[in-house]
Amino acid sequence: MNKTNPGHYFEDFAVGQELMHATPRTVTEGDASLYTALYGTRFALHSSDSFAQSLDLPRAPLDDLLVFHVVFGKTVPDVSLNAVANLGYAECRFVNPVYPGDTLATTSHVIGVKENSNGKTGVVYVHSIGRNQRDETVLDYTRWVMVNKRDTASPAPEAVVPELASSVPMESLEVPSGLSTSAFDATLSGSPFLWEDYGVGERIDHVDAMTIEEAEHQLATRLYQNTAKVHFNQALAEKTRFGKRIVYGGHIISLARALSFNGLANAIKIAAINGGRHTNPSFAGHTISAWSEVLEKTELEGRSDLGALRLRTVAIKDGSSADFPLKDAEGKYDPSVVLDLDYTVLMPRRG
Amino acid sequence: MNKTNPGHYFEDFAVGQELMHATPRTVTEGDASLYTALYGTRFALHSSDSFAQSLDLPRAPLDDLLVFHVVFGKTVPDVSLNAVANLGYAECRFVNPVYPGDTLATTSHVIGVKENSNGKTGVVYVHSIGRNQRDETVLDYTRWVMVNKRDTASPAPEAVVPELASSVPMESLEVPSGLSTSAFDATLSGSPFLWEDYGVGERIDHVDAMTIEEAEHQLATRLYQNTAKVHFNQALAEKTRFGKRIVYGGHIISLARALSFNGLANAIKIAAINGGRHTNPSFAGHTISAWSEVLEKTELEGRSDLGALRLRTVAIKDGSSADFPLKDAEGKYDPSVVLDLDYTVLMPRRG
Amino acid sequence: MNKTNPGHYFEDFAVGQELMHATPRTVTEGDASLYTALYGTRFALHSSDSFAQSLDLPRAPLDDLLVFHVVFGKTVPDVSLNAVANLGYAECRFVNPVYPGDTLATTSHVIGVKENSNGKTGVVYVHSIGRNQRDETVLDYTRWVMVNKRDTASPAPEAVVPELASSVPMESLEVPSGLSTSAFDATLSGSPFLWEDYGVGERIDHVDAMTIEEAEHQLATRLYQNTAKVHFNQALAEKTRFGKRIVYGGHIISLARALSFNGLANAIKIAAINGGRHTNPSFAGHTISAWSEVLEKTELEGRSDLGALRLRTVAIKDGSSADFPLKDAEGKYDPSVVLDLDYTVLMPRRG
Repeated sequence: MNKTNPGHYFEDFAVGQELMHATPRTVTEGDASLYTALYGTRFALHSSDSFAQSLDLPRAPLDDLLVFHVVFGKTVPDVSLNAVANLGYAECRFVNPVYPGDTLATTSHVIGVKENSNGKTGVVYVHSIGRNQRDETVLDYTRWVMVNKRDTASPAPEAVVPELASSVPMESLEVPSGLSTSAFDATLSGSPFLWEDYGVGERIDHVDAMTIEEAEHQLATRLYQNTAKVHFNQALAEKTRFGKRIVYGGHIISLARALSFNGLANAIKIAAINGGRHTNPSFAGHTISAWSEVLEKTELEGRSDLGALRLRTVAIKDGSSADFPLKDAEGKYDPSVVLDLDYTVLMPRRG
Repeated sequence: MNKTNPGHYFEDFAVGQELMHATPRTVTEGDASLYTALYGTRFALHSSDSFAQSLDLPRAPLDDLLVFHVVFGKTVPDVSLNAVANLGYAECRFVNPVYPGDTLATTSHVIGVKENSNGKTGVVYVHSIGRNQRDETVLDYTRWVMVNKRDTASPAPEAVVPELASSVPMESLEVPSGLSTSAFDATLSGSPFLWEDYGVGERIDHVDAMTIEEAEHQLATRLYQNTAKVHFNQALAEKTRFGKRIVYGGHIISLARALSFNGLANAIKIAAINGGRHTNPSFAGHTISAWSEVLEKTELEGRSDLGALRLRTVAIKDGSSADFPLKDAEGKYDPSVVLDLDYTVLMPRRG
Repeated sequence: MNKTNPGHYFEDFAVGQELMHATPRTVTEGDASLYTALYGTRFALHSSDSFAQSLDLPRAPLDDLLVFHVVFGKTVPDVSLNAVANLGYAECRFVNPVYPGDTLATTSHVIGVKENSNGKTGVVYVHSIGRNQRDETVLDYTRWVMVNKRDTASPAPEAVVPELASSVPMESLEVPSGLSTSAFDATLSGSPFLWEDYGVGERIDHVDAMTIEEAEHQLATRLYQNTAKVHFNQALAEKTRFGKRIVYGGHIISLARALSFNGLANAIKIAAINGGRHTNPSFAGHTISAWSEVLEKTELEGRSDLGALRLRTVAIKDGSSADFPLKDAEGKYDPSVVLDLDYTVLMPRRG
């Protein structure tokens, strides 16, 4: 009997199905160091135990996106090994903070299936939950992917398409238990600008840029135990229309977030990802820059020390973030845009 | 007086000689993270403290091959700096598990010497032992290398060639003290196939593949503090017949083991390496895939929860592991084969 | 208002000014592993907890240069973002050892400013101090950089040029509290040569060499959270006279120090950097080798177990360290020289 994992085809998914994903992962200080080496991230809360303690947390939590990539990576062998396309994310909430030594595991529920009219592929919606060793939720999100059918002759299932919120409601954002920014040191954090200083519609060019190397994105994607073949196999890639290994989309998200420090240094924590599109593939050799726009600004109930900003961060390849490229008059993305990410961050207030 | 290490020449080795190798090394969670980033390994026992605890171990032990590379790396300056060729390994046993925080050191005994008929080189056999800070053996193996003579005029020593077992006897395999797989969770480990499901002669194509980058194999080999010049020095390499840096053979072993997860996910631990041949050099740019064959299947005395499988895992460069390439009719290795490894793994049984 | 950091221009610096740099950083075992993977360093004190304990330290301290790079990296956004050139270092002392878990932060005092005669740039001298979470000094150094003026019309400040020692006085070298080398094991450390065996004027070719990859120097420089654009942005680099990303000078210092193990294995600790010049830029693809000269040899007051050696270590690109290249008859550096480092190490004595 074939011992290797063939991945699931469209016919293998049914609404209500629960998938327990393999390879629980203890995340450590070693992962945090690699994450810093891969992206150069400088957000003080994740960089310094002392800084985290000044905000009443026990020590520096792991970067939110490192947690996202580890939780997400586990779903790949069961959800997207035969995926034609990653279509979107929604309703992604960062719940409990993750500390070095925590062990993460992921489960997914199938919440929607819809065959495409071509009869060859279908869209699968899964709601995935990452949990720690105490069974507490650390991350919670919905993702939909286009998957090949094993057999084009198999009948279409009843279409179920879940209703997804266009953004995570502000009232369901989680603030890490105990976190207080009343003693926030904006000199150590790297910017004097707090929640009050940002205005809806404001756009920020993050100035800096980084060129991607093959070794870097491969190291990152393996660190997350993400096994999608397109990222690692040049012999296979040479037979595709790109001729190159494709960079894991999450690598671009992390690069853009790290670059956004220059302009958003006090966005201490990602609370939610409302949606995201990888509008073009990225390859080694691309130089990535980023710009952001403030989409929304909200107080958090019962808190005068902390507010939320909903942001769009756009990553650009080999172009100028200073020009804020996005879409043309017909709404088509500029070819230099590789990521359009809609997410919500927590930022200290003057109170 | 010359302060640098000239390495040992054939005349410097004598049967009975003991070599204490330099640079003890504390291995840590940081090494484990790098190992994951370098190979994308997903074996649950090494990935998760919680999973290790479900098997009654205190926490996730470090990957067996990481231990092998660190123990082996220490022998390079004393044994193989002037080596012409690494001829083989045998009788390699993984004894006590290694945990983050343990400090490893290596000693070697010279157990054989035999001058070659050309009078220019000789073969040296060393038995090396890696020990932790409590002086417990963690790894134990024999290796033989061809070494240059300093002076072709020096007389040949009495030839001593040790008898080496063609495989580590099953009765001398070590199971980590306390390990029990009675509560083994095959969903979390990533495969439903246990010891009973594998048959002698069965061949498995591991499907996945990875392309090697220069930065990756250099980072790996330095992590192991292996100083062999051929891996790092492009200026020197350009004067060789290859024109390129050679990838450390152990890097290929680790890649092949990580790829073998897809088909052998429940091979939770390497207990022994019976022998191995690096049949062709590997270079950056090669895409490595792998296939395995079950050579032998054995019960372990006194254990109904765990069995042993003797495996051959073959690594292929830029070829198709689905064709199971190995040797031609005359017994000559296929040019795509870079590694032919004979080793023994532990795998849970249904009991 | 512009939210991004424009960096400081010459006019922004004034003698007496204090700069508190952003992003405190907890350094960990993960950073130590990455440091080993990046440079292959083998000094036993930093590699092994057991070895460190044999010298009466609690555990292996982090490599001195890792500490230097992290402390230095924090100064970049405030001191050298608009720098035209890094002109020099002096009076750099390594004070308290740094252990995994310590949190480092950096402050700088401006101790000199001098406008250049062209009216377009000026030289700024800063004295920087790295401290741990207990506010103890771990590193202390002076650096001077050439910085652009924002406005060439702005008046020149009164010139203040600090007097800097040509070397750190031996009496102000710090030996880590508690360190004793009375039980020093020269077999484990990798060399029989102790302080008594080195003579002033002695030159050592370190034999080994390493070729730099883009991914390696980028990973290193990001690990240190050093944000200088020239190291990461190929799109920008293509418009410069080099056409390439420049390797962070500290990466070369670390490579040279790691290579110097072969000949200086018992130089267990860097106590001071007296001065250093990056005489030529380094790029990916360069093969770096190194040689050293003993400049001075000093006893340490009250210690018979430990002495100091003042060394010059010269790093060479794509050349032969066996030829000891340095300067031509007119005192101009050989084009193959990329680093001329003057520093002081501690080395065990026979007593």
